Amino acid sequence: MQSSEKIHSAQFLEQQLQEVTTLLEKQQLEKSLLERSPANNHELVAAMLQNQHQARLQEKLVYLHPADTAFILESLPLDQRKTAWEAIKSGHDGQILLEVSDAVRQTLISGMAAEELATVAGQLNTDEIADLAADLPKRTMLKILRSLNSKERKHLNAILSYQENQVGALMDFGMITIRNDLTLKAIIAYIRRLGKLPSHTDKLFVVDQHNKVQGILPLQRLLTHLPSRQVADVMVTDFVRFQIDQEAAEAVRAFERYDLISAPVVDSQGKLQGRLCVDNILDFMREKSDEDLLSQAGVGEEEDLFSSVWKSARNRWGWLLINIGTAFASTRIIGLFEDIILQLVALASLMPIIAAMGGNTGNQTSMLIIRSLALGQITPGNVGRMIKKELTLAVINGIFIGFIMGLVSLLLYQDIALSAVMAAAMFINLLVAVVVGLGIPLLRHKFGMDPAVGTSVILTAVTDSMGFFIFLGLASLFLIK
Amino acid sequence: MQSSEKIHSAQFLEQQLQEVTTLLEKQQLEKSLLERSPANNHELVAAMLQNQHQARLQEKLVYLHPADTAFILESLPLDQRKTAWEAIKSGHDGQILLEVSDAVRQTLISGMAAEELATVAGQLNTDEIADLAADLPKRTMLKILRSLNSKERKHLNAILSYQENQVGALMDFGMITIRNDLTLKAIIAYIRRLGKLPSHTDKLFVVDQHNKVQGILPLQRLLTHLPSRQVADVMVTDFVRFQIDQEAAEAVRAFERYDLISAPVVDSQGKLQGRLCVDNILDFMREKSDEDLLSQAGVGEEEDLFSSVWKSARNRWGWLLINIGTAFASTRIIGLFEDIILQLVALASLMPIIAAMGGNTGNQTSMLIIRSLALGQITPGNVGRMIKKELTLAVINGIFIGFIMGLVSLLLYQDIALSAVMAAAMFINLLVAVVVGLGIPLLRHKFGMDPAVGTSVILTAVTDSMGFFIFLGLASLFLIK
Repeated sequence: MQSSEKIHSAQFLEQQLQEVTTLLEKQQLEKSLLERSPANNHELVAAMLQNQHQARLQEKLVYLHPADTAFILESLPLDQRKTAWEAIKSGHDGQILLEVSDAVRQTLISGMAAEELATVAGQLNTDEIADLAADLPKRTMLKILRSLNSKERKHLNAILSYQENQVGALMDFGMITIRNDLTLKAIIAYIRRLGKLPSHTDKLFVVDQHNKVQGILPLQRLLTHLPSRQVADVMVTDFVRFQIDQEAAEAVRAFERYDLISAPVVDSQGKLQGRLCVDNILDFMREKSDEDLLSQAGVGEEEDLFSSVWKSARNRWGWLLINIGTAFASTRIIGLFEDIILQLVALASLMPIIAAMGGNTGNQTSMLIIRSLALGQITPGNVGRMIKKELTLAVINGIFIGFIMGLVSLLLYQDIALSAVMAAAMFINLLVAVVVGLGIPLLRHKFGMDPAVGTSVILTAVTDSMGFFIFLGLASLFLIK
Repeated sequence: MQSSEKIHSAQFLEQQLQEVTTLLEKQQLEKSLLERSPANNHELVAAMLQNQHQARLQEKLVYLHPADTAFILESLPLDQRKTAWEAIKSGHDGQILLEVSDAVRQTLISGMAAEELATVAGQLNTDEIADLAADLPKRTMLKILRSLNSKERKHLNAILSYQENQVGALMDFGMITIRNDLTLKAIIAYIRRLGKLPSHTDKLFVVDQHNKVQGILPLQRLLTHLPSRQVADVMVTDFVRFQIDQEAAEAVRAFERYDLISAPVVDSQGKLQGRLCVDNILDFMREKSDEDLLSQAGVGEEEDLFSSVWKSARNRWGWLLINIGTAFASTRIIGLFEDIILQLVALASLMPIIAAMGGNTGNQTSMLIIRSLALGQITPGNVGRMIKKELTLAVINGIFIGFIMGLVSLLLYQDIALSAVMAAAMFINLLVAVVVGLGIPLLRHKFGMDPAVGTSVILTAVTDSMGFFIFLGLASLFLIK
């Protein structure tokens, strides 16, 4: 569990990365020198050098925590990463595969034979194998399944049958179950016989003969109560448990609220199915928040910093193509007003401002709504008040920003009518932006869809088109004779 | 620590919220009916009703976990929130104040007298008082400081002297320290005498007479080793510790990597100063990721869903004003080319597309760089390769997207020269976007600034201005005689 370094710091990791890179570069250099040399004993020397380098790399990497090795692999360019990965035969391979990001894992797995992969996976727990399953070739998965005993196979199937946003996909099986008629002394003796507790064991689960969870026994109580007492007297019967098909996001909120370290996962009959631990919750949170940030910027998924250019290109094109579509569509509105622009060309410089500001305010509103929805703070009871508040805010914003817009336009063009149209168009487009920024996430949520997905694309398309339409429309009504 | 409900679920909380809202609405209704009634015993009846409602509310809220009460308070409109808060005299007030969001906390504190606040804060640990400190009036803080003993005062000062992104600001003092010459039996007896361990105690800290941390004793080892053994033989000397002035983000990464529950915080001499726990890490992560998402959308800080409209307006204006500035500045470029637009008005519809697509691709690049920088994956050794890859990608993107742009323009306007200008402008602006999207975060990082802050604003300003300039400039060179 613990790193081999006493003080974890970014500098320490950077230094390790530097040293590994130096080793790898030296190896590459010697290899290329050797290839150009005219000597006969070429292959022999090459093999010797190779072994020497492997040994040095292994020496370096074997003392590192798997997560640190994973970090170093992620930071290495593809060719060096492959060399380093081949040198690692530390027995930690499985853990390292678990720790690297999805994109990097694929580059590591792609070079491994099915047998090799199956051996590596054999070092892992079933819940860890489940994490890898999506990235493993079918042949390898079959091999792994055959090597498991029936209980492990049942566990693996259980996890794989849940979607990644459900509690079942996040659980592990490292729980210790006890009966309530034992004494604490017996429990302590039992633990001593086990010799080792699964990581993150802060409580034992008390179950009846049907495997139903009756209570929990925190290690704390085990330590602070007299050994002669019975589990039934000391256990906590009022505890947080999760349904196996519950949404993972709800479990995350519960871990945050109740400061949990581990909690039982049960089925609809209350039977113990597994355990949720804070380390998996932390990983899930990190993944979710990274996904949210990247999708905000229109990137499909986490990228390997050194993946092939083509792979990265494909990851980014989807959203760009949609944007080309909406951009052309919304600017078609401008095409309708070309006569007006020819009569008053200043409109061409002012119209992008109306469109952009609409997008900005709409995005502010929708992001706040999306967050409140995610936190479960918006309910049928208060949604009306919330909409009223946002609309009031939009009116105030519209007056304030519209006024500034009008003022700046007046300074630039000394045309009162034009400035009035600018101010009015800004006011109306801000109202449109807020209505759309409120409406899309609320409606998507109402119909059971993720309120975040695509909201910003639709919003920008609407505020752009409406911005051009309102501004040029008002101009054609009031400015052109 | 545990919720009083056996299965935590969003439905349960929504139902609680619904019930509290119903109670509060009934109370409001009866109050307003009473005020309109002509009876004499007005005040007496009002007081009676008031008491009755308070009692019912208290009954409802007293069984809830402070975090759940906090959720309900956050979801209540201001007037109802105030009534509910006054009804809560459950002794949990301090915990509830800790759990609500910063914005909501201010609405609760604003109605409380200094004495009352000092009493509430008196229920809390020093690290919890530190969390509230920023929101408490000076007078209250002085009162609280006077009520603390010298050790507590020292602790409070220690935490308050660190910035919120440093480890020192996240630590608590709930650690149990032991000496290495004791037997496990003595430790177990000591814990039984204590009667209770601080929450999140998964290990005890072994210190020498100078308070230097020599090792850790996981509870697991305490339970699995023979009671006759000495701490010195059983303790782990190879453990993760944190420097008190280290960056909190680094500690978060270490907790994720090494799956920690708690870890010692030391000063530069290795002396124990406090303890970091996973619950505070979880809260810090949540706050950071929320901040990142909101600042992406141009919202300054978390908002109270029901704060006054003026407060919300001020929270959103800052960024909007900056955007007005950049929008006017970049569209000034269009003003320079008004003659060109008059000669070929189709340019007016096409130019916003070039600007928008530049912003989109630039944002994709900068977001990926910002994330890699945050993860520490970009080092002096690999930054060159990374830049080369992004530039190659930009060229491929430019050719692909430029081609599509040209094609669509050709379909719309049947003008080969115009389409060629469109394609070329898109190509060049995508290169500009990627250079800026790479350059800003890398440079900001190099000079020790947060690479995320303001990147998207500067980027959009540049890609807009350059988009207009490149497109209209090329048009004036090649399309206009």
